[in-house]
Amino acid sequence: LLADLALVGFGNVGRRFAGLIEERRGRLAADFDLTLRICGIATRRHGSAWDAGGLDVARAAREVEAGRALTSAAGSADLIAELSRSDAPLRIVVETTTLDIAAGQPAIDHVRAAIDAGCHVVTANKGPVAFAYDELRDRAGAAGVSFLFEGAVMDGIPIFNLVREALPLVDVIGFRGVVNATTNHILSALEDGEAFAPALARMQAAGIAEADASLDLDGWDAAAKTAALANVLMGARMTPHDVDRIGIDEGSGPRAREAVAQGNRLRLVASASRGPDGRVRGLVRPTVLPGGDLLAGLTGQANALVLQTDLLGEIAIGQLGGSLTQTAYALVSDIVTIRTRQPAPAGARARRTL
Amino acid sequence: LLADLALVGFGNVGRRFAGLIEERRGRLAADFDLTLRICGIATRRHGSAWDAGGLDVARAAREVEAGRALTSAAGSADLIAELSRSDAPLRIVVETTTLDIAAGQPAIDHVRAAIDAGCHVVTANKGPVAFAYDELRDRAGAAGVSFLFEGAVMDGIPIFNLVREALPLVDVIGFRGVVNATTNHILSALEDGEAFAPALARMQAAGIAEADASLDLDGWDAAAKTAALANVLMGARMTPHDVDRIGIDEGSGPRAREAVAQGNRLRLVASASRGPDGRVRGLVRPTVLPGGDLLAGLTGQANALVLQTDLLGEIAIGQLGGSLTQTAYALVSDIVTIRTRQPAPAGARARRTL
Repeated sequence: LLADLALVGFGNVGRRFAGLIEERRGRLAADFDLTLRICGIATRRHGSAWDAGGLDVARAAREVEAGRALTSAAGSADLIAELSRSDAPLRIVVETTTLDIAAGQPAIDHVRAAIDAGCHVVTANKGPVAFAYDELRDRAGAAGVSFLFEGAVMDGIPIFNLVREALPLVDVIGFRGVVNATTNHILSALEDGEAFAPALARMQAAGIAEADASLDLDGWDAAAKTAALANVLMGARMTPHDVDRIGIDEGSGPRAREAVAQGNRLRLVASASRGPDGRVRGLVRPTVLPGGDLLAGLTGQANALVLQTDLLGEIAIGQLGGSLTQTAYALVSDIVTIRTRQPAPAGARARRTL
Repeated sequence: LLADLALVGFGNVGRRFAGLIEERRGRLAADFDLTLRICGIATRRHGSAWDAGGLDVARAAREVEAGRALTSAAGSADLIAELSRSDAPLRIVVETTTLDIAAGQPAIDHVRAAIDAGCHVVTANKGPVAFAYDELRDRAGAAGVSFLFEGAVMDGIPIFNLVREALPLVDVIGFRGVVNATTNHILSALEDGEAFAPALARMQAAGIAEADASLDLDGWDAAAKTAALANVLMGARMTPHDVDRIGIDEGSGPRAREAVAQGNRLRLVASASRGPDGRVRGLVRPTVLPGGDLLAGLTGQANALVLQTDLLGEIAIGQLGGSLTQTAYALVSDIVTIRTRQPAPAGARARRTL
């Protein structure tokens, strides 16, 4: 089955995604009878490109990395219109723009445009699920297309797939997790005696933290993930601005070292629970955890989430390392989900019957 | 959709399964358009019963718990033959007999009989996957029925579902985990200064350990789980007898306390890896872990597995408590998987589109 793709956003995640589907081309065909063809690329600063017969993506990546603009000047809306005219059996918009913490834009508009054009849409951007999950889910449902976002919260950890496919009949009644890599890296460094400013500078030099790290340090990234998880897993209707949020700062060093001295660990914990009034409350807080807590042992890039469930008690899932490949993989796994939702020819997926 | 069930085995797990599907009857109908009807029960010591119109299962449970025999004397083979004559759209054998570590029997024969009779089969018994996974998978595939076993290894943790449904294109290249509750309970107690014999006696009194605890203590249970995981996730063709196995004993107390004194923890670790010759090697060992290791923090009933993957690095999944309900749930989730593999009417599963 052929799927034509338009990439909206072509930064680190978008380019890694393009590389990954090339690397796994054989497996996609063998395991899922799926061929992916990238026909469009839209960037914020480097123009955009469209070729209904498939773009030379490696060349486009080299152009963008060299700071040159792509051929055509059309924006994302034009690309989506072009994609909607493809006669491939699957038409999928791959949205990888960066998070806007004010209102989740323009990612939400990209998702709406894709759905309204009858295209499936997968995104690694937290904005759409953190700000507008209910609307976009219903809009996609009405249009008969899929809106998926596995990469938005926990890189390669298939948290939404896990709940959707592997935990039928189970209600998530709360969660707590360590979900932001930059702050977790810095807290690990502070525990080792490093000062705040040099630890941050080192993370920025290593490309782990952004030049403007305030989204991470002030807890906004964790708050957006909290809202996304609460909206999807618990039926909350919140935005990141509804999350009660405290980040980390210069004062975190002494607290982190004091915690270690007492056998505990300081971690930036994101959590949600349902109050007696039925409303879901989201919280981001530097939290002192007992040394034996599953979340206490997470250092550096590791992240994990503990789901509180009605039927199974607490279930934990985490990854020991997160990176671009994990986020790009999440987009690929969403595309596989779209594929497996199509009526399958006899014999397909035989390898995965377990 | 109606599914007729025959329960082969009606011990603690089988009876909890029957209770759970009663408790979740509304959700099964609402979320999956699925109605379950238990028509047959076969026990080892208390006879068996069949009613094509559906048994009074609560009454059967009371009979068995009071030590009385069920009405009919037919064995499991007769039940499966009866089930195969049902005209319900789904016919499912629910196998919950206990593990036989010599050869996985008679569970393997039960699974074979179900498949050969054209019935789906779900089991919480490790034997079939630990001793005969390849044969049973191929047999089920040829017969066009499902053979599922989510409850065999990690109670409510959906480890097989996770890999099957949420990790497409990913290869598992190894794993390590804490998978046996009895030994983990005892090691936790030993760390707290309790002696081996009283700790074991306390576990037996609490119903956590069997009267004959040797399967747990000698590492056989962990070895069976290692073989099951390696066979399914890594394509190994091993049995529990191929696993290099050391259990715990009186000498574990001093080692556990010495580990704690040095900031480490002693845990019974089950693992598998592929050697240079391509063969998968399984290992069960009391292992000293650094205090920060994800597996080190597991106490009591908690268990967890770290998967080593080719694409995503290490992924960890665990549960903080395991019990009968979790194992029974795994059987229900397997039945839901069988249901969702059927062509779905339009609109079904809408609640879970995420």
